[in-house]
Amino acid sequence: MKNIGIDIGGTFIKAAIVESKGKIVLSSKTPTPKTGADIPQKVIEMIDDLLQKAGVNISEIKSVGIGVPGVCDTKKGTIVNCPNIEGCKNIAICDYVSEKFNVKAYIDNDANCAALGEYTVSDIKSDSFVFVTLGTGVGGGIILGGRLLRGINSAAGEVGHIVIKQDGERCNCGRRGCWERYASVTALVRQARAAGFTGHVSGRSIFADKAKGNKKADEVIKKWLEYVAEGICDMVNIFQPDEIVIGGGISREGDIILDPVKAFADKYSIKDTNSPRNTQIRISKLFNDAGVVGASFLYTQN
Amino acid sequence: MKNIGIDIGGTFIKAAIVESKGKIVLSSKTPTPKTGADIPQKVIEMIDDLLQKAGVNISEIKSVGIGVPGVCDTKKGTIVNCPNIEGCKNIAICDYVSEKFNVKAYIDNDANCAALGEYTVSDIKSDSFVFVTLGTGVGGGIILGGRLLRGINSAAGEVGHIVIKQDGERCNCGRRGCWERYASVTALVRQARAAGFTGHVSGRSIFADKAKGNKKADEVIKKWLEYVAEGICDMVNIFQPDEIVIGGGISREGDIILDPVKAFADKYSIKDTNSPRNTQIRISKLFNDAGVVGASFLYTQN
Repeated sequence: MKNIGIDIGGTFIKAAIVESKGKIVLSSKTPTPKTGADIPQKVIEMIDDLLQKAGVNISEIKSVGIGVPGVCDTKKGTIVNCPNIEGCKNIAICDYVSEKFNVKAYIDNDANCAALGEYTVSDIKSDSFVFVTLGTGVGGGIILGGRLLRGINSAAGEVGHIVIKQDGERCNCGRRGCWERYASVTALVRQARAAGFTGHVSGRSIFADKAKGNKKADEVIKKWLEYVAEGICDMVNIFQPDEIVIGGGISREGDIILDPVKAFADKYSIKDTNSPRNTQIRISKLFNDAGVVGASFLYTQN
Repeated sequence: MKNIGIDIGGTFIKAAIVESKGKIVLSSKTPTPKTGADIPQKVIEMIDDLLQKAGVNISEIKSVGIGVPGVCDTKKGTIVNCPNIEGCKNIAICDYVSEKFNVKAYIDNDANCAALGEYTVSDIKSDSFVFVTLGTGVGGGIILGGRLLRGINSAAGEVGHIVIKQDGERCNCGRRGCWERYASVTALVRQARAAGFTGHVSGRSIFADKAKGNKKADEVIKKWLEYVAEGICDMVNIFQPDEIVIGGGISREGDIILDPVKAFADKYSIKDTNSPRNTQIRISKLFNDAGVVGASFLYTQN
């Protein structure tokens, strides 16, 4: 049995037919419409197109899952508000899709979808699982006993907004010192600029400079990883999860990110010294596909 | 149906016969034996004594639940290690109790028991519930979907060891800047001494001084509550729980603690402005009885 995942982003919408173990059969990508009102129709077209190109009949599709970059109502199946897409408010997208194709449709926010994707393809059958994504901000998704932790208002998992530096830098959320303000890729770029980097600076460029032996880049990354590790260690102490996965495009840097974070958590987290079991920390397997793959598994949560 | 709760502390052991809604029928308290090996026999005596004094037959008792100030193995029913009680290691206390009385016996750490007690007597049927206890340290217990979050090694909920001030004061756990280092009652006392208080200083004495109009005490408490609020706000952002309960002896100060914490969380937590529902924050109802009452409800978790 196959499912379709849709990952609505601020710039692109991705769609994919996904097999039950997370393998993508066929995927596509198209620019996000300028206004939110045009999104449902665009999604319909993408699904029609995918089915046709893959030679898959809709009767083979169990469900459609939709991830959105904002607040949604998982029970009603509606987009409540995506602040980065104009006019993307109060859209009954699940009803629209399920009426059109006569399949069940589900919705959740993008970080929860990405968490669900990584959880599903993990080698570990985790009873508790934490996903942290490093990007423009720091997002998260938490899966306990196989269930996404949604909290009231489906708004749980705002792990980027725990404070690691009281009275620190002002965050967009209004508080000071949030983890996101120090450990996002946006923060890494800001830290690089503060250290003297000029011109085009991105997460990728800083890591590339480090790879070329640039000492300043090395120092900036080292300090940034201390911020990343501090919050990951908090996640270990709160959840003692079986697994923590670090995602987002920057996580492609792999062990350069993973090794110091693991070393920090190993040194500083609260452990039961009598037990050989500890939280496993790893890098994303799905990278940018986590959202679309996870969306296709939303049916498991409803 | 009644259950018996046992709350093993570093100084005293408390025992109580508890009704199904959390009402204590009869309770007792005795000094904790000097060595851990004597604890099982002491617990047996306390149970015998309680049953006799209350005129309750053991057949009316559904289970015995035991809370311990340290690490335990909830599956095996053993105390793994209580660092503050000499020789309190690897004790199969549940087997001992259940063989003696022919009832089921369960174990968990004290913070989880206290969380379970407060959860059970709450007016809100919370799907997600966070308990934070302010005392010598800052402890916590998390209940999601009616289940205690135990994590691997039954060690989840170490909420006192999230960092709110990176590179801050050294914590006993080895990290710097842990919430516990700033928001525990021990920290409040340290902060009061640093502000010039001398002689006998306790959480109670500082609040008493504030009540008498002492401005310095007022300032110390105000700053301490900012630390408390910072971590509570983190809990809101991570879990978006239905309810957060603040416990520990100091929580008897009530609204003096609660009001500024609620105001901070209301101002700074991530909220869905479309929803009227937000996390409810309240003070403990059970205070020092939370552990013994919660222990009596451990049967619901196994």
